[in-house]
Amino acid sequence: MKVVQLSASEKLKAEVCFTPALLPLYDIGNSIVVVIDIFRATSSICYGIENGAAAIIPVSKVEECAAYHGTDCLLAAERDGEVVAGFDFGNSPFAYTPEKVAGRTVVLTTTNGTHAIQLSRGAKRIVIGSFFNLTALSDWLIKEQENILLVCAGWKNKFNLEDSVFAGAVVARLKDAGYSLDDSSIAALDLYGLASDDLRKYLKKTSHSERLKKLGIEKDIDFCLNVDITRAIPVLEDEKLIKLEP
Amino acid sequence: MKVVQLSASEKLKAEVCFTPALLPLYDIGNSIVVVIDIFRATSSICYGIENGAAAIIPVSKVEECAAYHGTDCLLAAERDGEVVAGFDFGNSPFAYTPEKVAGRTVVLTTTNGTHAIQLSRGAKRIVIGSFFNLTALSDWLIKEQENILLVCAGWKNKFNLEDSVFAGAVVARLKDAGYSLDDSSIAALDLYGLASDDLRKYLKKTSHSERLKKLGIEKDIDFCLNVDITRAIPVLEDEKLIKLEP
Repeated sequence: MKVVQLSASEKLKAEVCFTPALLPLYDIGNSIVVVIDIFRATSSICYGIENGAAAIIPVSKVEECAAYHGTDCLLAAERDGEVVAGFDFGNSPFAYTPEKVAGRTVVLTTTNGTHAIQLSRGAKRIVIGSFFNLTALSDWLIKEQENILLVCAGWKNKFNLEDSVFAGAVVARLKDAGYSLDDSSIAALDLYGLASDDLRKYLKKTSHSERLKKLGIEKDIDFCLNVDITRAIPVLEDEKLIKLEP
Repeated sequence: MKVVQLSASEKLKAEVCFTPALLPLYDIGNSIVVVIDIFRATSSICYGIENGAAAIIPVSKVEECAAYHGTDCLLAAERDGEVVAGFDFGNSPFAYTPEKVAGRTVVLTTTNGTHAIQLSRGAKRIVIGSFFNLTALSDWLIKEQENILLVCAGWKNKFNLEDSVFAGAVVARLKDAGYSLDDSSIAALDLYGLASDDLRKYLKKTSHSERLKKLGIEKDIDFCLNVDITRAIPVLEDEKLIKLEP
């Protein structure tokens, strides 16, 4: 992959939107949007696409997901960190193994991640990021030569640390390729700088991590912090997330 | 001043709201709100109150400020970093010297800071923070034994680095006094940790700093990063910011 170094006058922008509530402030129509929900929606989406899911359909509401009952689709619904009663599974990455999802279409609704995807409609393209595809995603973004908006799903529209740290990991790569940063992307980059030596240790202090620990899903959290286990990039085409063919 | 160490079960909260756009997510009715607009509104307000201004009346709109024409008040209006034509001054701290403001009432409208003050109405109390009164403010907050919400004015509802770094400086002191942190306050604290050795150097990279430099007000910026030059804390009483009498 060739890293194109841009001159100052024609710099592309690398911005970070810390929560979906701030999306109206950004010019998403002129950007590729990367949606980030590390614990756990976008990690699971990357893992599911890597493991051969034909498509993942993100929907905002549990009822929209339920409307697919009786179809061939697997139905995944999570709210407040737990699987909603009556659904096949939630957003634990361990539900997205090849045995479960290969060749299947999954309909997914989650507390934060799918909400952020819906609000990002109108972007030039919407792709899905997680530590699982950090390098593949960054390489592809740089190749596209567009403004990049990293959208953190956060927790119920509030800032969260794990999504911001991942955004900073992407910013680090975009900065090296010459993109201009805003204050949000500088902050994300600096937080990533503090976290990068030991992601697990740094993110132990997040409130979200505490919340998920109470739900007994420490194994999910630990798994979601594996870096570069796939080169698959989920991209939204019409209503479906499918594997990007570079 | 006595620092009260709280037990885990009764911990007070220290939260950071990174932009006024996120204020609806917080329970401001149960918090003391600290409004922060380092470059330059809240620095100038602290300086003006320190220098003997009788009161500073924050208003949202230029027209509201203009309505005070013909009164004894000094009228200060800033938009996009510049003094609005027809007004006595804007929000440069150097306009708030004893010679200019002692005994006077100033009516002030700014791009970000006064907007944040207006949106914070409904809080238990609203006080004004800047590096100028960092220690005095933090000491008083801890003495009050209430939940604290640090509200960054940002830039046109977007995150900015200098307000967040100052919020982190207050969080550092609240954390030592036993307050519980959320992800925003952890991030602010960590950014302050990176900046505290040399605030000027760290904040040189902010987009806001670049913007203000274009406007030729580097001296203002440099001045606004002086720490602990006053113990005055401006507090909102009815419609006016006055000096808090502890």
